[in-house]
Formats: sequence, structure tokens, C-alpha cells
Amino acid sequence: MSQPEIEAVRKALKVVPGAHFKGAGKDTINKVLFEDKDDAEESLKADAKAIDELQDKLYAERRRALLVILQGIDTAGKSGTTKNVFKETSPLGMVVKAFKAPTRHELARDYLWRVHDAVPPAGYIGIFDRSHYEDVLVVKVRGFASPEAVEQRYQQINDFERLLVENGTHVLKIMLNVSKDEQAERLQARLDQPHKHWKFNPGDLDDRALWDDYMKAYNVAVTRCSTEHAPWYVVPADSKTRRNAMVARLVRGALEDMAPNWPKADFDISKIKID
Amino acid sequence: MSQPEIEAVRKALKVVPGAHFKGAGKDTINKVLFEDKDDAEESLKADAKAIDELQDKLYAERRRALLVILQGIDTAGKSGTTKNVFKETSPLGMVVKAFKAPTRHELARDYLWRVHDAVPPAGYIGIFDRSHYEDVLVVKVRGFASPEAVEQRYQQINDFERLLVENGTHVLKIMLNVSKDEQAERLQARLDQPHKHWKFNPGDLDDRALWDDYMKAYNVAVTRCSTEHAPWYVVPADSKTRRNAMVARLVRGALEDMAPNWPKADFDISKIKID
Repeated sequence: MSQPEIEAVRKALKVVPGAHFKGAGKDTINKVLFEDKDDAEESLKADAKAIDELQDKLYAERRRALLVILQGIDTAGKSGTTKNVFKETSPLGMVVKAFKAPTRHELARDYLWRVHDAVPPAGYIGIFDRSHYEDVLVVKVRGFASPEAVEQRYQQINDFERLLVENGTHVLKIMLNVSKDEQAERLQARLDQPHKHWKFNPGDLDDRALWDDYMKAYNVAVTRCSTEHAPWYVVPADSKTRRNAMVARLVRGALEDMAPNWPKADFDISKIKID
Repeated sequence: MSQPEIEAVRKALKVVPGAHFKGAGKDTINKVLFEDKDDAEESLKADAKAIDELQDKLYAERRRALLVILQGIDTAGKSGTTKNVFKETSPLGMVVKAFKAPTRHELARDYLWRVHDAVPPAGYIGIFDRSHYEDVLVVKVRGFASPEAVEQRYQQINDFERLLVENGTHVLKIMLNVSKDEQAERLQARLDQPHKHWKFNPGDLDDRALWDDYMKAYNVAVTRCSTEHAPWYVVPADSKTRRNAMVARLVRGALEDMAPNWPKADFDISKIKID
């Protein structure tokens, strides 16, 4: 067992606020934190159980929430991560929101409106599968908003996340970082396996053609929105097993920092009689 | 291994539409379906895996939903059932809604408004932990609505559920049936174990004092709302292990009836090239 300390994982993956991040699409494998896959699997297993236990207490408390934001380009593994890291956690007390292209109803409001609506309530772990970061990623690359509007959003996002943090929601932001070659392999796998066809959308190839633009947009977003109150963690994601293990360490670390505990009774137990 | 067929479990637990149900609080142990706890545990384990696989396909299809309604008095085991039956299922593709006392905002609308808002979207399994049935249970027992208003609700509920079913949502209604003695033991356990104090609410004892009224209200609700399109299943719930195993059989059965499958590609795979 050579399971890395949570602090070591954080240190290796955190984008220090103020630092200039240039790693989108690069350094997509890390074999230092978990030497081999067995180590990673064992670590994931232990962490999934610990996350379940911590979540029980968070739910009992009903005072605070944990929001895990998963970002990454198509095939980066957002669904697989969700499934594996929370495999031991009861669906009661979790809420997953997968953000798609906004509806007309949503587009009629500011871009953070639907995001705010989806934040986890106190006691819950919320997962964002994509998020408001798409509003400075796909929106920027495809030109769905003016450059001036996009430029304003980084600060707006930092302010919005600070609102959440200051009101009891821990925000854990994780970018799943895969290489262009790895994406090709995963897209090909979707074509090769009939039970994965539903995941393939020919339109995804248009995004792939804009790979460099997306990576640039990720670099800017991560650089400008890695803050003290909600730093970005960039997880090398070409190895699924290690990716799951790293994310689990980060989630467990966030929950341990929150240190939820069984609430005390606010009534006099000795006076209760059950007939 | 003496795992009962799904059909046998259904037959034993289903309240036949039109039949007069009088079993609330009675027959709360069934040792016929699962002879011993090991059988029940093995069955649950296999079903939890099968439910996970079926849910993957349901999610891929995005055409239909499964709504599991869990009803039962306090301590009947709604949370524990949710946790155990869906222990293998990814939180992505599940949505749990625990209904509490309605807010002022909700009370300003008809009682089904907040329920309709919470139905699972296509592709999802939704769990209702309590439901609109509280509107003919606690509401009736406590007199929160006039007897005339409550009387109208049974038909309204049947109509509402038919709307769901006819539009692609399978509705599986499960009453967790515990005895008055078992409830006493479980309430006492909440007092005895500090990490369960948060689950204890002294107000629950007021409901317990109205036990007979609640059982009568359950009998009426189950009798009048067990329909062809959405029958009630009454699960003996004094044994947690068997309860979980029975519910898992019912959920798996519902999903197998829906028979979700991997969607076929709606594009020509041979024409796709990934650069």
C-alpha cells in the first residue's frame, strides 16, 4: 500500500491562485501519486467508503453542502468519475446536475440563473457535470457571446462562487485533463462498441476540430478562476483508474476539512417515554 | 439459494385493484419469500447489480422514467431502503425527493403542484421518500384539509398517476409496513444511540399516539389508489434485510418490464472518421 496523503494529492494537482496555468491537454498522466493501478483501486475503495460515512453526517447536520464541479472536454470521464467515486454513497443526500445547452427559457435569464437554481441544498453533495464554466469555454470558442461579455464573466464567476462559499457551500472544482490522442481513442471506442453508440454525437467532432481553441479557453478559465475560496484542481485523466482515485482523495479531503458530525439532540432525552 | 421469482414476490405483495386492503400495521413479517437472511442478502446483492445495469440503459435511452414511491410511517425504513436497493446505481441518472411539510410557497398551489414538479425526467429513476399520499394520510389524520377535500383526492391522485403512466413514467408504489411494536423499538434505538439522535423528533410521538388513525388512513389510501396502471405493493418491513430484498425484486421487475436497451446510432457509423 502506497496511498498518497490527501495533502500530497492536493499539492500535486492544485492550481495555485495567481499562477499562470498552461497545462490543458498536457501532462495527462501521473504515475507518481499512484505507482500502479492496484494501489489506485485500493485507495478508491477506501475513500468511497469514507465519503459515504462523511456524507451521512453531512446529511444529518443539514447545515452545509459540498458542490463538486467536474469539467472536462468530451470523453474526459465526468460520468465515469461520478459513478465510481460515489459508488458507496446513498442517492439520498446527493444531487447530480448535468448541464446541457441552455433552453430558450434559460437563455432568457442571465447565464448564472440556472446554475444558482441547481446548487445543492444544505446537507447534500451536489455534482455539476459541466457547469457555468461552459459559459467561458464553449460559449467563448463558438462565439455564442461577445468577447466583452465573456471577459466580464471570470470575475462574475469568482464572485458567485464566493457567495456560495461564504454561505456554507464548499466548492471543489476539478478539471479532468485528457490528451488529444486519448480523446481519439475514446471516441473510436464509442464507435466500435454498439452499447456506446448513444454516447457518440457526430457534432462532437466539430468541437474536436477546435481542440486548440478549447485548450486555450481552459487555460484562461482555470488561471483566472483559481481563487483562494475555490481553487481549481487539474486531474490527469488519461488513466481512468488513477483519475478516480485522485478525485476520491480530493472529495474525501474536502469532506474531512468540513468535518461534519452527528448533531446533538435539542431536547431532553431523559424525559422521552415511548409507549 | 432459494431466491423467489419476481412474479412470486409481486403476487405475495400486490394489492389487487378493487380489493379491500385492511393490512396496515399487520402481517409485518414475511419469512416465506426469503427463508433466511442470507438468502435475502444474496438476492439483494444480485438485484442491486442488475438494477444498476438496467438503469444504465434507461439513462442511455432517455425515453422513459421509473418513479418509485416509498410510503411508510416514521421509522418504516424509507431511507434505509433507498440506500440499500440502489447501492450499486450511479447517482447520475437518479433523483431522490424527500417530501417534507409543505412550504408557504407550496401551500399557495394545489397539493399536486410540488409533486408534479419533482417527477423524474426521461432516463431517470426517481425516488419519492413520502409523496402526495401524505395528502390523504397526515393531512387527513390531522385535519389539515376538510373531509370533502380529502375525499376528492383519491380520484385526483389516480388520474394524476395515469397521466404519468400514459406519458412514459412507470409508477411503482411501495408501502413499507411495520408494526407498532417494531416502531417502538426503532424509536428507542434512536434515543439510545447518540449518532441517531438527529433522526428523533419528539413530535413523532404525537403521530405515534394517533397510530390507529394512521393505519385506517393507510388502509383507505391503499384500497382506493391501487389501480391497474399503478398498483400498490405492501412490503412487510419489520425485518430490514428482507424488506430490502423484496423492494429490490420489485424494482428489478419494474425495470425488466420496461426492458430498456442501448439506443441505435442515428447516423452512419461507417462515414465517421476521427482525426
